[in-house]
Amino acid sequence: MMIEVEKMKYFIDKLVEKIEEKNSRICVGLDPHLNLLPEHLLAAEIRKDLESNQKETAAAVLKFNKNLIDAVADMTAAVKPQMAFYEKMGADGITCLWQTVEYAKSRGLIVIMDGKRNDIGSTAIAYAQAYLQNKKTSVDAITINPYLGRDGILPFLENKERGAFALIKTSNPSAGDLQDLKLNDGRKVYQAVGDLLKKLGSDYTGNCGYSNLAAVVGATYPKELKEIRAQLESVFFLIPGFGAQGGKTEDIKAAFDTDGRGAVINSSRGIDFAFRREKYAHFGAENYAKAARAAASDMKEEINKALS
Amino acid sequence: MMIEVEKMKYFIDKLVEKIEEKNSRICVGLDPHLNLLPEHLLAAEIRKDLESNQKETAAAVLKFNKNLIDAVADMTAAVKPQMAFYEKMGADGITCLWQTVEYAKSRGLIVIMDGKRNDIGSTAIAYAQAYLQNKKTSVDAITINPYLGRDGILPFLENKERGAFALIKTSNPSAGDLQDLKLNDGRKVYQAVGDLLKKLGSDYTGNCGYSNLAAVVGATYPKELKEIRAQLESVFFLIPGFGAQGGKTEDIKAAFDTDGRGAVINSSRGIDFAFRREKYAHFGAENYAKAARAAASDMKEEINKALS
Repeated sequence: MMIEVEKMKYFIDKLVEKIEEKNSRICVGLDPHLNLLPEHLLAAEIRKDLESNQKETAAAVLKFNKNLIDAVADMTAAVKPQMAFYEKMGADGITCLWQTVEYAKSRGLIVIMDGKRNDIGSTAIAYAQAYLQNKKTSVDAITINPYLGRDGILPFLENKERGAFALIKTSNPSAGDLQDLKLNDGRKVYQAVGDLLKKLGSDYTGNCGYSNLAAVVGATYPKELKEIRAQLESVFFLIPGFGAQGGKTEDIKAAFDTDGRGAVINSSRGIDFAFRREKYAHFGAENYAKAARAAASDMKEEINKALS
Repeated sequence: MMIEVEKMKYFIDKLVEKIEEKNSRICVGLDPHLNLLPEHLLAAEIRKDLESNQKETAAAVLKFNKNLIDAVADMTAAVKPQMAFYEKMGADGITCLWQTVEYAKSRGLIVIMDGKRNDIGSTAIAYAQAYLQNKKTSVDAITINPYLGRDGILPFLENKERGAFALIKTSNPSAGDLQDLKLNDGRKVYQAVGDLLKKLGSDYTGNCGYSNLAAVVGATYPKELKEIRAQLESVFFLIPGFGAQGGKTEDIKAAFDTDGRGAVINSSRGIDFAFRREKYAHFGAENYAKAARAAASDMKEEINKALS
């Protein structure tokens, strides 16, 4: 009976509980930039022609990911593999991606697939089936792009144990090219996207008060982040852009509600390749996982301190 | 020397030439909806649990695709695999996807990967590498989503032999949720996207006068299609939504310039599964490829006639 009850839990409730259990508001991105991997993981001859050695490369990435996951599992609620880096390795990369997902789940972590998928209704259904509805291979949530409107979004919400994070305001320099355009009703495009998500997500609200339709809001635009938090009190945020992209702890405080809930802050390169950062370089490439653990721990504590 | 010259040709010039060579303005979508495949291709026991039989399912899809490609190769310039349907089959699906791409290329067809990829700059670079820059596995062009602005778009244009089709106005019912919002300068969001693409694409114009940065404009919104054509004379269009989604020949005439150039019209389900349409049902499921050929031929002729 316990299992049945557990199985029916809303995605967003599971995420919020996991964050409280770990007392950690971080999400560890798993973005295996091949040129940043510790050199000892890829033999020189493989490194010379990665494209002809996808199987070996994917095996190295899997090893790297498993060690990272082991290193941070007790201090993060979620991991977020960025699909582009796996797709680069062809079918072997996809095998590695699903093995990584499986391993993260076995360590009790929530998995957010970062694919920013989007398409017309019948194709959005196929994507939702691919990532959220398969019995053997599926993740807890996926990132999506809202440009196609509601029928490109709703298929991802059909299974209440799964969630979706739709882009509102992204962390990149040119985010404003479209997202900041002003509408004739006074809103900006990203605010209109926020309103749409709020409306669509209202039928998918968990016990925690947040919706299974969550959002991506970049740490690199703190003013907008604060505004969007005020606009969308029932929308949970995934915040990229912390660390390597420039987002700071002070900037992301506004993402949280007064109980310190409502967001996870992602770091990918800053944790995965912490051994390349001056602060953690003393660990050395051999101890990349220890460096990642130290960086994750520091980030976790820094955020908790800022919110306390 | 001939090979060198050929290799350096702009993507958009290759596409325009191929269209003229075939005298065909159609693009055949390869969207293997598993529930629409001819039943004889998948044994009943496989069909009962597709998820546990991804290898067999992917093998059936590859056979289906190859027969479709053979059936339409002399009357289409391009094929467009929709990635969602391959991703649904996990790593086996990705193997099937690349085998399909390889086969289509061996038949001299232009391949447009329909993935609507989008992300921040460093990740957009990874996607561009994955699909447009690998030596062994790459396609001629990919569809992308413009929501992240220029630094999510430009990486896909780096290799001039490759192109990108960015969404402007999509073919689905809720396309207008965001795309039709009115800006304070009088434009709608999709028109602002059009202006951005025009500007970004101007550095990537081929001899044919069109840019390697092309666009997706749905056949289901003929009024907007006509407006966008007038707005963006150097932007080549991929037009989905014809046939199964409701777009008609009269509706898509406006996509072409006065020389009958500037667009390809995609049909996926209407051709792939023509044997399920009343008009082509007499072929029977066994002859699905012949039915697809007949449907492609009719579509090609219908468009040419409308433009003559």
